[in-house]
Amino acid sequence: MTETSNAAESEAPLSGTDRTRLRRLQEEGRTDRAALHQVLAAGFLCHLGVVLDGAPMVVPTVYGATADTLYLHGSVASRSLVQAPEATVCVTVTHVDGLVLARSVFEHSVNYRCAMVYGVPRQVTDPVEKLEGLRVLTEQAAPGQWDYARRPNRKELAATTLLALDLAEASVKISADPPDDADTPDAALGLWAGQLPLRQSWDEPVADPALPSGIAAPAHIAGRTGTDYC
Amino acid sequence: MTETSNAAESEAPLSGTDRTRLRRLQEEGRTDRAALHQVLAAGFLCHLGVVLDGAPMVVPTVYGATADTLYLHGSVASRSLVQAPEATVCVTVTHVDGLVLARSVFEHSVNYRCAMVYGVPRQVTDPVEKLEGLRVLTEQAAPGQWDYARRPNRKELAATTLLALDLAEASVKISADPPDDADTPDAALGLWAGQLPLRQSWDEPVADPALPSGIAAPAHIAGRTGTDYC
Repeated sequence: MTETSNAAESEAPLSGTDRTRLRRLQEEGRTDRAALHQVLAAGFLCHLGVVLDGAPMVVPTVYGATADTLYLHGSVASRSLVQAPEATVCVTVTHVDGLVLARSVFEHSVNYRCAMVYGVPRQVTDPVEKLEGLRVLTEQAAPGQWDYARRPNRKELAATTLLALDLAEASVKISADPPDDADTPDAALGLWAGQLPLRQSWDEPVADPALPSGIAAPAHIAGRTGTDYC
Repeated sequence: MTETSNAAESEAPLSGTDRTRLRRLQEEGRTDRAALHQVLAAGFLCHLGVVLDGAPMVVPTVYGATADTLYLHGSVASRSLVQAPEATVCVTVTHVDGLVLARSVFEHSVNYRCAMVYGVPRQVTDPVEKLEGLRVLTEQAAPGQWDYARRPNRKELAATTLLALDLAEASVKISADPPDDADTPDAALGLWAGQLPLRQSWDEPVADPALPSGIAAPAHIAGRTGTDYC
């Protein structure tokens, strides 16, 4: 697991800043924005990194992505969103696609897709953009719910912090390769080597126990069952 | 998605330090170490947060956990592992279990299990512990591979940085509830509400294209197919 499993820290530039410059394992770096948007579009959960009192804090949270903006939200009481204003954050989205099982432990790794976005988030106060950002964020996780569920009212909007992060400074790493020790002396060990893919898919919807009988899950929810996530 | 989706930042103390003290949504906090170990045991990938040049950096990487220690590793060239020595890190492990689809968008959330561990990692230099830490880390992701594959040699060990993080300061959040707006006026909307579970499972192994024919995947790998991950 040594060489590439945490290699997402070495990434290719979309922006060319120092922290997104490629440092190691250049073959895994992707420079195109299409790859960034593919990775972002495949998920809905990110890990938001902030600095609080000099220490890092990494929090899972949902996101929504447009062509140029990543939206994050949370309670107005949220430490990670509100207590770190006008400071750089790092948002990382990772999809784990499987294990790479090589002949040697050293060459073991993980196949994954990872996007890292850096920037100083902007707090969205304009009510039109705030509602639109929440729509994007809701639809990213649960397509169809914005038109189906009751939308946020004024009081709920006031209780919600929405942050917008430019997708200007970002990097993408995609690793999707078989083990690469087939051409080493370890091949003579006669061991099996390959990949063990990991699949994430949606199960059957589970109705709220408090739901009155006779209300079926709508097609935009029930239709996801059995389909792959990310 | 507003209220609980990034609520992992509000967590219950295992240690009682300021940053692991519960701030919001106390019902979701878990104080027992058993819950911490369950969340850590269920996965193998974490998001490591470090501070570099004053900015946060969040990197996906594999981990291995013992009763009291979390092991992380990487290349000795790794920025996140080596360029932030003797500084606090935050390691977050998140398993997404599904969407909580409420009657109102505001009450939408995510069911998940999350552990956050804070501490100053110790670089492992003792060769016995280093090998043992790599064993723990390898077996966490791929049980059986430590005894099957070729173990690290001296040169490979020298090229590997192993960090040990005490599991002393940590918090756990587990959210596994149905929507909670059944007793609000929104119930009268007659909308479906419930959960859409997400399942992660192992697929069939895919042999390295360079593998000679006649070498079957061993039982400890092939036997995982169809089983759930996390």
